[in-house]
Amino acid sequence: MKIKTPAILIGLLLTLISYTTSAQEGSKDPDAIFIKKIYNAALSNHVSYDWLTDLSVKVGHRLAGSVGSEKAIAYTKSMLDTIGCSKVWLQPCMVPVWQRGSKEVVKIVKSEKGSKTLRALALGFSAGTPSKGITAEVIEVKNLDEVEKLGKDKIKGKIVFFNRPMDNTQVRTFDAYGGAVDQRVQGPAKASEYGAVGALVRSMTTLIDEWPHTGTTHFKDGVTPIPAIAIATIDAEMLSDLLKQGMVKVQIKASCKTLPDAPSNSVIGEIRGSEKPNEIIVVGGHLDSWDVGQGSHDDGAGVVQSMEVLYLMKKLGYKPKRTIRCVLFMNEENGLAGGKAYGAEAKKSKEKHIAGLESDSGGFSPRGISCEGDEKTFIEKYKQVEKWKYLFEPYDVEIVKGGSGADVGPLKDQGAFLMGLRPDSQRYFDFHHSNRDIIQNVNIRELSLGTAAMTSMIYLIDKYGID
Amino acid sequence: MKIKTPAILIGLLLTLISYTTSAQEGSKDPDAIFIKKIYNAALSNHVSYDWLTDLSVKVGHRLAGSVGSEKAIAYTKSMLDTIGCSKVWLQPCMVPVWQRGSKEVVKIVKSEKGSKTLRALALGFSAGTPSKGITAEVIEVKNLDEVEKLGKDKIKGKIVFFNRPMDNTQVRTFDAYGGAVDQRVQGPAKASEYGAVGALVRSMTTLIDEWPHTGTTHFKDGVTPIPAIAIATIDAEMLSDLLKQGMVKVQIKASCKTLPDAPSNSVIGEIRGSEKPNEIIVVGGHLDSWDVGQGSHDDGAGVVQSMEVLYLMKKLGYKPKRTIRCVLFMNEENGLAGGKAYGAEAKKSKEKHIAGLESDSGGFSPRGISCEGDEKTFIEKYKQVEKWKYLFEPYDVEIVKGGSGADVGPLKDQGAFLMGLRPDSQRYFDFHHSNRDIIQNVNIRELSLGTAAMTSMIYLIDKYGID
Repeated sequence: MKIKTPAILIGLLLTLISYTTSAQEGSKDPDAIFIKKIYNAALSNHVSYDWLTDLSVKVGHRLAGSVGSEKAIAYTKSMLDTIGCSKVWLQPCMVPVWQRGSKEVVKIVKSEKGSKTLRALALGFSAGTPSKGITAEVIEVKNLDEVEKLGKDKIKGKIVFFNRPMDNTQVRTFDAYGGAVDQRVQGPAKASEYGAVGALVRSMTTLIDEWPHTGTTHFKDGVTPIPAIAIATIDAEMLSDLLKQGMVKVQIKASCKTLPDAPSNSVIGEIRGSEKPNEIIVVGGHLDSWDVGQGSHDDGAGVVQSMEVLYLMKKLGYKPKRTIRCVLFMNEENGLAGGKAYGAEAKKSKEKHIAGLESDSGGFSPRGISCEGDEKTFIEKYKQVEKWKYLFEPYDVEIVKGGSGADVGPLKDQGAFLMGLRPDSQRYFDFHHSNRDIIQNVNIRELSLGTAAMTSMIYLIDKYGID
Repeated sequence: MKIKTPAILIGLLLTLISYTTSAQEGSKDPDAIFIKKIYNAALSNHVSYDWLTDLSVKVGHRLAGSVGSEKAIAYTKSMLDTIGCSKVWLQPCMVPVWQRGSKEVVKIVKSEKGSKTLRALALGFSAGTPSKGITAEVIEVKNLDEVEKLGKDKIKGKIVFFNRPMDNTQVRTFDAYGGAVDQRVQGPAKASEYGAVGALVRSMTTLIDEWPHTGTTHFKDGVTPIPAIAIATIDAEMLSDLLKQGMVKVQIKASCKTLPDAPSNSVIGEIRGSEKPNEIIVVGGHLDSWDVGQGSHDDGAGVVQSMEVLYLMKKLGYKPKRTIRCVLFMNEENGLAGGKAYGAEAKKSKEKHIAGLESDSGGFSPRGISCEGDEKTFIEKYKQVEKWKYLFEPYDVEIVKGGSGADVGPLKDQGAFLMGLRPDSQRYFDFHHSNRDIIQNVNIRELSLGTAAMTSMIYLIDKYGID
């Protein structure tokens, strides 16, 4: 797109003016005016991007129980201390400690086409192998039922390869993820129950590329953990092709181990309410990440956005009536210990949480805020929030019904109105849980627009309450 | 975001299901069903992405009148020939021929801090310099009025430096572009009128970075073209700081030249309508690009999307009632010769163009389709199109009023209903007219979703007509 002559320029300018939905410009609506101030501040200063750069580069990845997670706790606490919160504290929780150990190896050792090393990442809670590795024949399945149908005779002693792709015809990539991720979460345990010695899982991504994507897998009590490893989609395609030609043997080497649970913390900062301090509004993301890349989108973005909600209120001189609390939850990725501990503590101390907003879908261009709540009160509360739709229209943000976030989830039973930031999802699984989830793949404006949408919603709920 | 236990998995799946606005699933609405087919096909095959890879890598950039533009004409014509169009042809137009020559140099030769080379790109229609370059004192201005106020005394013999940033508080980046680009389009000519020997222009981008962004500048008849060069925003900031400390002299070397106009072509392919072949629906983008990067977003994306609209109709066995014409316009960037020639030819041959849809805002996640038309008939037509809003809701695409595109613009007076694909704009000016506009910065799903939205709209207009 270009602009050539002054005449064309004038035409374009008129067009551009007609683009602007005009709730924010020249409005006398005090909410529209304040929200415009929030957006201006977020888009001018990009505080969250600066924090995210530190969290990505200086702290790096930060799986619960790791040295990185301790650095992340110290860094975010120190940043919250600079904002001028009424109070900043750590909330303890016990977290699982899983360690990857040295780089895992997945190698085709026998096939029609000879040997080849696959691009691989062990899944969280994967078992390790003996130091010489394990070598076994590979059997491909598309879903968990197939393991059952094949039965112990066919599965025993093999490496089960789960290879159902994400459904790329889904418009929202989280729907495609939801339709495929049972293979990663439950597949290795199912394989183990049927006597498999290992599991390979096609990476959860919408791309065909060379990057493996990790994530948690779950071995319930009584099921023997086995080595469970994600491989890049391009290698999954290749392995599947080889299996069509004949028997394939793979060697897996991994030195993963699960240590005893260890103490850790979520990080909390709040601005105490001036009129109704006992009504609490939570805004948060999760502080832990997988142990690869920099965890910039998942969920560094949610962490720094939540911190900036408090920062912007301070900067703009807004004194909340209610208590606004930024919670950076520990251990969302492989246990949810922080979210559970927060919910339990809130219940025990009988704190009244009126609302919770989580950002845990990446730092992309925000398209909406989705809302949910308990059966009894949700519809009435949603009607109140829907009235604010016009305030978000100038920013292309919709208010819709839908899920919120795993960490704030435990507050639902306590009557809180729950929300999730819903960014554009198209690129999320390019980066998710992989070495590509780094600061270079976060756009400064997209991140700040998410922050501004979150701050605007928290401002409205604080000002008007919700019940 | 992760999923841990089966229990949590079920919770998440329910949430994901509740995400889906359900017009497309299980619908008996034949339009909803066909549009779902369009989306499935676009998201499964990604034909436009494959074409865009060729256009970016094998053809490369393609300014009107260049060797690249000839290769682009040949490549896209050959691809349209493979689709099974009723007819494929070239439509001639005369285009300006501006050549950059060897790499331009902008160097601070005298300042408080010594000398330094700036990252620079000459603007289209910039004049060259003598081979030893020109060296002159720099004077900074924020807008065109300042040049007038300073007057000939202060401007004569100087290099005028236009340095008003794009307004990053604008939510839609095109608004920010529209508010700043007069400096690039008209600034150098204004400086020349007041006796300047050269012009530097801060790059049109929302980032502060090291990449210069070119674009057209306009010297009307009677105004002497001068060397006019864009510099990277980070260098613009630095130069501005230096100017606060004292006098700065800059040396500019450029070997740009403008040759006589030359013949070129737009590329056209059509599927002839089965019932009303004389009613024409145009879908298009522009085939030329700036002479840097690969022109992947601007406007390779629009080119391949428009071609895929025809491809998808053929693939899905849809036989249009009306004539669907894909037009790949030449010379949008620095003359609009293709768009003007197409409009003039349509007028001359009394073709009836009922609608035109242009994609020229990058291959990003589509957020809407904006509509405009002539004063007399627009409102009635828009009411018809608005009725289709529900069909686009499952795909998060809005139908709104707003600008269409420069190339289809000339069809407005002929009564055509005009539309523009409106992708998310946050990243557009990171790449626009720079060496970063390359295929690696296009996301495969985002591009295909744009194609699907365009195809769906063309399908509806073809099926129901518009009047």
